[in-house]
Amino acid sequence: MKSFASDNYAGVLPQVMEALQQANTAHARSYGADDITARTVALFRDLFGGNAEVFFVFNGTGANVLSISSATHSYNSVLCADTSHIYCDESSAPETFTGCRFFPLAANEHGKLDAEIIAQRLIRRGDVHYAQAAMVSVTQATEYGTVYTQAELEPIAALCREHGLYLHMDGSRFFNAAAGLGCSLADISARAGVDILSLGGTKAGMMYGEAVVVFNKELARHIAYKHKQVMQLASKTRYIAAQFEAMLKDELWRSTAAHANAMAQRLHAALSAHPAVRVTRPVQANAVFAEIPRHWYEPLQEHYPFYVWKDSTHEVRLMCAWDTREEDIAAFAAAIGGLSPTLS
Amino acid sequence: MKSFASDNYAGVLPQVMEALQQANTAHARSYGADDITARTVALFRDLFGGNAEVFFVFNGTGANVLSISSATHSYNSVLCADTSHIYCDESSAPETFTGCRFFPLAANEHGKLDAEIIAQRLIRRGDVHYAQAAMVSVTQATEYGTVYTQAELEPIAALCREHGLYLHMDGSRFFNAAAGLGCSLADISARAGVDILSLGGTKAGMMYGEAVVVFNKELARHIAYKHKQVMQLASKTRYIAAQFEAMLKDELWRSTAAHANAMAQRLHAALSAHPAVRVTRPVQANAVFAEIPRHWYEPLQEHYPFYVWKDSTHEVRLMCAWDTREEDIAAFAAAIGGLSPTLS
Amino acid sequence: MKSFASDNYAGVLPQVMEALQQANTAHARSYGADDITARTVALFRDLFGGNAEVFFVFNGTGANVLSISSATHSYNSVLCADTSHIYCDESSAPETFTGCRFFPLAANEHGKLDAEIIAQRLIRRGDVHYAQAAMVSVTQATEYGTVYTQAELEPIAALCREHGLYLHMDGSRFFNAAAGLGCSLADISARAGVDILSLGGTKAGMMYGEAVVVFNKELARHIAYKHKQVMQLASKTRYIAAQFEAMLKDELWRSTAAHANAMAQRLHAALSAHPAVRVTRPVQANAVFAEIPRHWYEPLQEHYPFYVWKDSTHEVRLMCAWDTREEDIAAFAAAIGGLSPTLS
Amino acid sequence: MKSFASDNYAGVLPQVMEALQQANTAHARSYGADDITARTVALFRDLFGGNAEVFFVFNGTGANVLSISSATHSYNSVLCADTSHIYCDESSAPETFTGCRFFPLAANEHGKLDAEIIAQRLIRRGDVHYAQAAMVSVTQATEYGTVYTQAELEPIAALCREHGLYLHMDGSRFFNAAAGLGCSLADISARAGVDILSLGGTKAGMMYGEAVVVFNKELARHIAYKHKQVMQLASKTRYIAAQFEAMLKDELWRSTAAHANAMAQRLHAALSAHPAVRVTRPVQANAVFAEIPRHWYEPLQEHYPFYVWKDSTHEVRLMCAWDTREEDIAAFAAAIGGLSPTLS
Repeated sequence: MKSFASDNYAGVLPQVMEALQQANTAHARSYGADDITARTVALFRDLFGGNAEVFFVFNGTGANVLSISSATHSYNSVLCADTSHIYCDESSAPETFTGCRFFPLAANEHGKLDAEIIAQRLIRRGDVHYAQAAMVSVTQATEYGTVYTQAELEPIAALCREHGLYLHMDGSRFFNAAAGLGCSLADISARAGVDILSLGGTKAGMMYGEAVVVFNKELARHIAYKHKQVMQLASKTRYIAAQFEAMLKDELWRSTAAHANAMAQRLHAALSAHPAVRVTRPVQANAVFAEIPRHWYEPLQEHYPFYVWKDSTHEVRLMCAWDTREEDIAAFAAAIGGLSPTLS
Repeated sequence: MKSFASDNYAGVLPQVMEALQQANTAHARSYGADDITARTVALFRDLFGGNAEVFFVFNGTGANVLSISSATHSYNSVLCADTSHIYCDESSAPETFTGCRFFPLAANEHGKLDAEIIAQRLIRRGDVHYAQAAMVSVTQATEYGTVYTQAELEPIAALCREHGLYLHMDGSRFFNAAAGLGCSLADISARAGVDILSLGGTKAGMMYGEAVVVFNKELARHIAYKHKQVMQLASKTRYIAAQFEAMLKDELWRSTAAHANAMAQRLHAALSAHPAVRVTRPVQANAVFAEIPRHWYEPLQEHYPFYVWKDSTHEVRLMCAWDTREEDIAAFAAAIGGLSPTLS
Repeated sequence: MKSFASDNYAGVLPQVMEALQQANTAHARSYGADDITARTVALFRDLFGGNAEVFFVFNGTGANVLSISSATHSYNSVLCADTSHIYCDESSAPETFTGCRFFPLAANEHGKLDAEIIAQRLIRRGDVHYAQAAMVSVTQATEYGTVYTQAELEPIAALCREHGLYLHMDGSRFFNAAAGLGCSLADISARAGVDILSLGGTKAGMMYGEAVVVFNKELARHIAYKHKQVMQLASKTRYIAAQFEAMLKDELWRSTAAHANAMAQRLHAALSAHPAVRVTRPVQANAVFAEIPRHWYEPLQEHYPFYVWKDSTHEVRLMCAWDTREEDIAAFAAAIGGLSPTLS
Repeated sequence: MKSFASDNYAGVLPQVMEALQQANTAHARSYGADDITARTVALFRDLFGGNAEVFFVFNGTGANVLSISSATHSYNSVLCADTSHIYCDESSAPETFTGCRFFPLAANEHGKLDAEIIAQRLIRRGDVHYAQAAMVSVTQATEYGTVYTQAELEPIAALCREHGLYLHMDGSRFFNAAAGLGCSLADISARAGVDILSLGGTKAGMMYGEAVVVFNKELARHIAYKHKQVMQLASKTRYIAAQFEAMLKDELWRSTAAHANAMAQRLHAALSAHPAVRVTRPVQANAVFAEIPRHWYEPLQEHYPFYVWKDSTHEVRLMCAWDTREEDIAAFAAAIGGLSPTLS
């Protein structure tokens, strides 16, 4: 049985395993000076734009911290959603490494920021007593499984440009967002005014590895040094690159992310059909949030682990992955069908 | 042709690739709560001692920084060899993350520290103006391919205990050291008074992944929090654990490291036989250091890349890996045999 | 004319100037090893309790950062009011030096925290992904000029003890608080369960200098080293100590703080008397907050500078100091008496 | 009796005390927005050049850390003498706040660096694995009481410019250096190619306070923010400014520093006259270093405290201050005259 706890419970895509095997021939130069890395960076540039700089890293926290450190001095602050992974789930790694303050902005009910929310925090500019905002960070898809459209990103990017802020996108589920929107990778990053992107590979079906993709030349000045310093430069970089090459080739990322998203839609349908359940957020990527009776937790989690998001309202998170199957959803639907709305 | 540039140019051991394949089934809990990780930690305890705590990390710099951060306050200093990787090859990651000062001690000609060298730097204890030493870091095998015997480690460990210092071992080539000494893993770590060990996997033939092994309970108090904070906690930890499991099972680490060491001995013999070459350091692990005529650099490196260690004396480093073959050494020996000691 | 902008616009008390003159004789050992410092520390112990440890520092941000660094590891968080100086007015100094995250808690309308507010943020204890709270910081008197009574502090201290948190008090206006409550210095610090206190001298009428007073022995372990490291150890410490000696002797602190508080009460009365003004916070120390017509800003500030606290509601802050005179208040009262509630 | 332990044992110059009294009138804007600060900054510009930016700070470590933080990213290194205050006497404050590595260069026997010494460490430029040098720091006068002439500074500055390094001068005894050389303040700072200067006030006879003087516009970009963040922005800045105004007016700095230097020359003469003493460093400012019989330590230090610099060679440091008197030297000379070269 599959878990709905997290897409990082899933294994590795067969195509990615195959790419790892194929990369495993002979000697290759270390620290990214190998042929596979060069080839994969070229592929990124095809997809994200010719000016993109690419830095392969180990994990999502590393990608975010590297991105932020490329854009900030230690007296700066970063504006992010109060629900964001960078604020809630990365310990104090961002502060320890960058020295910056992180100001939490109250996200809207869909877990998103907008220009108005951000503008309210653009206060005390030039005041040395106040940590000066240098960057806005948005998550795509958000922690609530919702997705920023291009039209939603553009005013945010415009506000950032106007106030001299950099725009960072935490894209640990970026592929799910692009698949959900049916757009290209560049549409909601480089073309939408994003300066730097943490592009997630692990949750999408890789074994490990993420990429920091830099669109703004200013942020590329120091980042190679930070890459090493932030402990995210792999000696055998070729094995991260090879995985990304597999993901990007023939849009494997799209078909697998679209599958996970489709499973989330099925789950959405199954849950919505039950009178005791309320789906709480738009299902736009691979996550479903719903309020369920609390006495369901135990019987359901025994077979289908999931996260309790907000116990006070019995809101739970169910996450689909590249390997979630229709029969997994069907079995889950059957299971909730057999549960009573009330404790008898 | 194989490179002698670095053991991290080598690929991944077939047994490790096989283990990765086998680990790739179904869902598993993330962040180290999976079965493979539990199994592998138990294996570590069999080999290193029942009290060992194990933290899997991505790379060597991460392992070292995590180890140091577990033992230090920001007003502390760390004593390390001036030739050590942590001092020469990890940017300022150690300072940025721990806040500490790193005092370089002049290593002896074999790249080693000893109790006398360390004791000379144990000055100004209790003086608030001077960064207070809290830890000594030694490298095993050293950056010069030499190895600390148990007898050499013991006085260092005794000095550390006497002065309230923790002893860290950077073991990025720890397997080569143990294979070279013909001892167990515990003999030159837990049993020799080491408090915390960075155990290298990547250079030994893994795809990625190292382990921080903690022997001193005091250092285990906070390290789980630091593990995440230092950006070294893998979501799909099982894939690092599986690689280590393969390395440790049936002493795969020993046979492969012993092979690399044996290749270094052959290289040593080939180089020593040439009148224009002087091997400069004892060959005790998988590295050979030698002074060669400078005009050899170019013709040799075309086919057999290596590092120029110290250009002023034409000292070069040649590194063997798990996949270095006898014919590689033979071909290299033939190549130098055809080179003239002097520029004609 | 006197400004109401800040109590740090005021000069130095004549008794403090006199103490500086008297301290200026002959040579004295540096870095706090002098006689005046010893004498003053003894005086602190008389007043705060025999176990108190005292560290003289230069300024309030230094005092706060030193206090926090004595109690935290870099993976920790600190819980503080969203209106607190440490969160709003000290740049990112706290993060840069300690590495910690600072979680802002919504203070009540009087700028205070209480046990319930704090308890709501005591979440995810033991979760390595979440910066672990290690300390609560309260401000006494608060940034709104209100004061925590002993009865209000005790449940906060009890909650802290229960959850293994340290309690820090930012007392940049601690003397005003104690004078306002008519209590001893120990009553609202050591006896109320505070672990460490930033005791303000500058705003109280000193030239420069604050003190970190440690009541919890655990926090005294490393603090002497941090004191130097945080750049707050004065070479000529005697001149800070001498100022504090003057403040503490014969309760100079109380008479001068009580005077400033009394001036605030007069200001309160004058403002309350005007129909166009609403005093917005209880006046318990030396600050008055009030909503005034916005068109008053300019004519008033020309002669009586003050801070606009919240422009959206026309809330302003008027601060009294040790040197505010009755005639200053009278003149100000006359000035607002001549202002029209509405723009004509 | 006067101590020879340190010039920070001395009190405050009467002219400085007088200036503090005169500054203590009425209210003044805080954080450096007051008239005295404006006036003093103008005076700095008269003396150091019209482009100089001035930031008043509390102490020398603060001045050095602020200077370095204005010029570095966390992946950088700073090159300094192994004998420098910043390397030996400021705990790990420089690392903790800037994240940088500090590489100690072996100073020559006079405690100085030169272009050749520095050039040897300009290695691995552009190598991401190696903390990249961004700044050179020299001390003027050095920790050995020697002085860099303009002619000595120029090749260092030229090397820095050539390699894109900033040149920092730790001038905690800068006034003594300028007095010793008989030059202007600008001659050995702005005009000698120094980019940023830590200008010491405390040891020169102030109560507290130093200044960071920026000559290179690039370093002025962020420094106002760092000034606050590094906990060195005084709320009542006027009292630091007033002290510097007194020091700079009518060259008070020169007459007092010249006096201290002259006392050091007398001490030099007295020591040189004794057959059992060897003066070990040129006496160019206000310090004298000498090897004396070890059995002299105790009888001498009872009345004339001094520092033992290097116990292995019995080298001691004797420091003169603005208030050292001829009779102090004469009494000391008489005391050593009565001591036997050998233990009887």
